[in-house]
Amino acid sequence: MPLSAEYSSRRQTLLPGFAEHKIDGLLVTSLANIRYLTGFTGSHGALYLAPGKAILFTDPRYTLQASQETTCDVRILTGSLFPGIVKALHRLKPGQLGFEKSQMPYFAWDYLTRESKSRYTLVPVDSLVETQRMVKSEAEIALIRESVNLNSQAFDRALKRFKPGMRESDLAAEIDYQMRRLGASSTAFETIVATGAHSALPHARPGETRIETNQLLLIDMGATRQGYTSDMTRTVFTGKAAPVWRKRYQAVLEAQQASIATIRDGARTVKVDAAGRQVLKGYGLDKQFTHSTGHGLGLEIHEAPRLGKRDKNVLRAGMVVTVEPGIYLEGQGGIRIEDTVLVTASGCEILTPTSKELTVV
Amino acid sequence: MPLSAEYSSRRQTLLPGFAEHKIDGLLVTSLANIRYLTGFTGSHGALYLAPGKAILFTDPRYTLQASQETTCDVRILTGSLFPGIVKALHRLKPGQLGFEKSQMPYFAWDYLTRESKSRYTLVPVDSLVETQRMVKSEAEIALIRESVNLNSQAFDRALKRFKPGMRESDLAAEIDYQMRRLGASSTAFETIVATGAHSALPHARPGETRIETNQLLLIDMGATRQGYTSDMTRTVFTGKAAPVWRKRYQAVLEAQQASIATIRDGARTVKVDAAGRQVLKGYGLDKQFTHSTGHGLGLEIHEAPRLGKRDKNVLRAGMVVTVEPGIYLEGQGGIRIEDTVLVTASGCEILTPTSKELTVV
Repeated sequence: MPLSAEYSSRRQTLLPGFAEHKIDGLLVTSLANIRYLTGFTGSHGALYLAPGKAILFTDPRYTLQASQETTCDVRILTGSLFPGIVKALHRLKPGQLGFEKSQMPYFAWDYLTRESKSRYTLVPVDSLVETQRMVKSEAEIALIRESVNLNSQAFDRALKRFKPGMRESDLAAEIDYQMRRLGASSTAFETIVATGAHSALPHARPGETRIETNQLLLIDMGATRQGYTSDMTRTVFTGKAAPVWRKRYQAVLEAQQASIATIRDGARTVKVDAAGRQVLKGYGLDKQFTHSTGHGLGLEIHEAPRLGKRDKNVLRAGMVVTVEPGIYLEGQGGIRIEDTVLVTASGCEILTPTSKELTVV
Repeated sequence: MPLSAEYSSRRQTLLPGFAEHKIDGLLVTSLANIRYLTGFTGSHGALYLAPGKAILFTDPRYTLQASQETTCDVRILTGSLFPGIVKALHRLKPGQLGFEKSQMPYFAWDYLTRESKSRYTLVPVDSLVETQRMVKSEAEIALIRESVNLNSQAFDRALKRFKPGMRESDLAAEIDYQMRRLGASSTAFETIVATGAHSALPHARPGETRIETNQLLLIDMGATRQGYTSDMTRTVFTGKAAPVWRKRYQAVLEAQQASIATIRDGARTVKVDAAGRQVLKGYGLDKQFTHSTGHGLGLEIHEAPRLGKRDKNVLRAGMVVTVEPGIYLEGQGGIRIEDTVLVTASGCEILTPTSKELTVV
C-alpha cells in the first residue's frame, strides 16, 4: 500500500479501540500521531476523529500544505486552536470524547472541560495511537531502512574527514552536513560526539574539546528522513587502544549481541535488557551500565516500547527498536554500541549496516 | 553578573510571584524554564522550588552533568520522574504547590493529584517563569547577539556557495553546516529554503526542487548557541527580479520598517502588528499577510510576547522579538523579511546585521 493510502486505513484500524475505551470520538494533539494518521507534517495542529469523520485543525500558515498533504476536512483557525475546536465540538456533539492524556497539557484539558456545555465528556485515553504505531507497516519499515542507511553512510563519510586535533563540534558539524547532503531533513536529535573523559557522560554535548590521538571517541547520531528516524552509536579509538579499554569494548559488544540474540516476536523486553546486563555483570561492569537497553523509534526518536529493567513490554514482529548498552566510568570515559533492529517472527534483523569491530580511525 | 551567578538570583526574583499566586512551592516541568532557573541543559528533568530550596529531579544519564551545571540539590530517579517526585513531596509537604499549567501534561497532574495524600494541593499557575524570561538580562542579550551574528555570518557563507541548479535541500544543508562550523550547537528550527511557488508556503520544508535563475528564494534560518536562539528571514532573487516582485519586495520591506519604527518600551504589540499591516493594505497586499508579525525569542525560538493582531502585550526594554511580515501568493511565490530586534527604553536596536536591500545572488 502506498503511504498516501495508508493514512485512512490507519484511522480505520484505530476505530475498534474507540469501543474498548468507551469513546465516541478522539481528539489527537500529538503532532507525531497526527502525522501518522493523516500525513500532515505541519508544526501546529489537532485532529478530531470519529467514525466517518476526520477534521484537522491548524493555522493559516498551513492552509495550502494541509490540503495538499491530507484527505481530512481542514479547518483553519487563527490564534490558539482550542476556542475553534470547542466551537466545532459544540456542533459535532461527540458524546464521550477521548483525549491523549500524556500529550494534552493541563490547561487545554481544563479549558475544554469548562467549555463543554454538556455537549461532550472528556475521557483520558492512554497511548491509543502510540500502541498502534509500535508495529510498523511495510512502507514505514522501508522508510526507516532508508533513514538507517543514510545515517550509516553519513557516519562513514564524516569519519573519512576526521583529523586528530579536530574539535568535537567540528566533527558533529561534519556528521550533520553529510546527513543533510544524503537527504536527511534534519538530525533526529542533537548529534553526540564525545572524546576522552567526556564520553563518560551518556548525553554529552559536543564541545570545544579537541579530539586527540589514542583516545576514545563516542558518536551517537540519527537522521530524520521523510519523517522517519534512525539511531546509531559507535565508539571508536583514535589510535592505539589501551588493553583495558579493548577488553571493555568487547564486554559492551558482547552485551549488545546477547541482548540482540533474545529479540523475536513474543520476547519480553525485560529479558532483552537482562541479557546484556548479565554479560556486563560477568565483567564487573553492570553498575556502569546506567540506562535502559533501548527504545522504539519511528516518527519519533523515542517511541514505545522501552527496553528497560522494569518495562513490561512484549516485542512483536514489525517493531523497530534500538539496542544500546553502554558503560560509563566517571573521569575516564565511556563506551556505547547501538544498532537499530527490526523484530521479526523468528528473530530480528539488524538494520544498521555499520561494522561493530573495534575500529581505529 | 556572570551567567552562573544569575541562576540563583533568577530563582530569588521569582519568589514574590509565589505570594501573588498564593503558592508555597512551584514544580517546574518546562525544560527551558529549568535551564533558565538552574543552568541544567539535560533533556529530562523537573525542578521543585520553595524559599531556600531548589531540588532538581533527573535520571542517571545526567548524574554527573547535573552536579556540574547546577547548584541545586540533585535527585537521580530511574524510570518516570513522577513517583519519585511524589515521594519527595510527601516529605517536603509544600502546602499549596504551583505547577505550570501549559507545560504539565494532564496525566502528570492527574497522578500528582491522586497521590497527594493531603500533603499538598496543586495550584495551576500560568506563565510565571515565562513572564520573567520575557525581559532578558545583559548576559542573555550578549548570548542572543552572538547567536544572531553567527546566524548572519552563516547566511553570508552559505550564499557564497550558492549555484543555480542546487536543490533547496543542498542549500539548507550548507546553511546548517556553516552554522555548526561557526559554533551553533544546532539549528533553532528546521531551516527553510523555498524557491519559486514553493515560497508561498510560509513554513515550507526544503525539498528536491532545484533553485533556478530568475526565481524568488526565501531563506528562514536560526541558530542555537549556548542555549540561545536567533531568527532571520531573507528573500533574495536568483537573477533578474520581475518589476511586480520588486514592488512587492519593497512593500514588505516598508511594512517591516513601519512595524520596527513603533517598537519601544511601553509600545503595545497590536500597534506593532497593525503598523506593518497598514502599509501592506496600501499596496492591496494585507490579505496575503496571513500570520502574526513576530514573537519573542531566547532559550526557545518561540517565547512570549507574541506580536499578533489580537495580542494584548506591552513591550518592555530588554525584550527580544522578531519582526517578520510576509506575503504569500498561492501558486506564485512569497516574500518574508525578518529581523531579531532588541527593545530599548527609547526605541529598539535591530540585532540582525544582514542587509535588507533587494539582493540578487
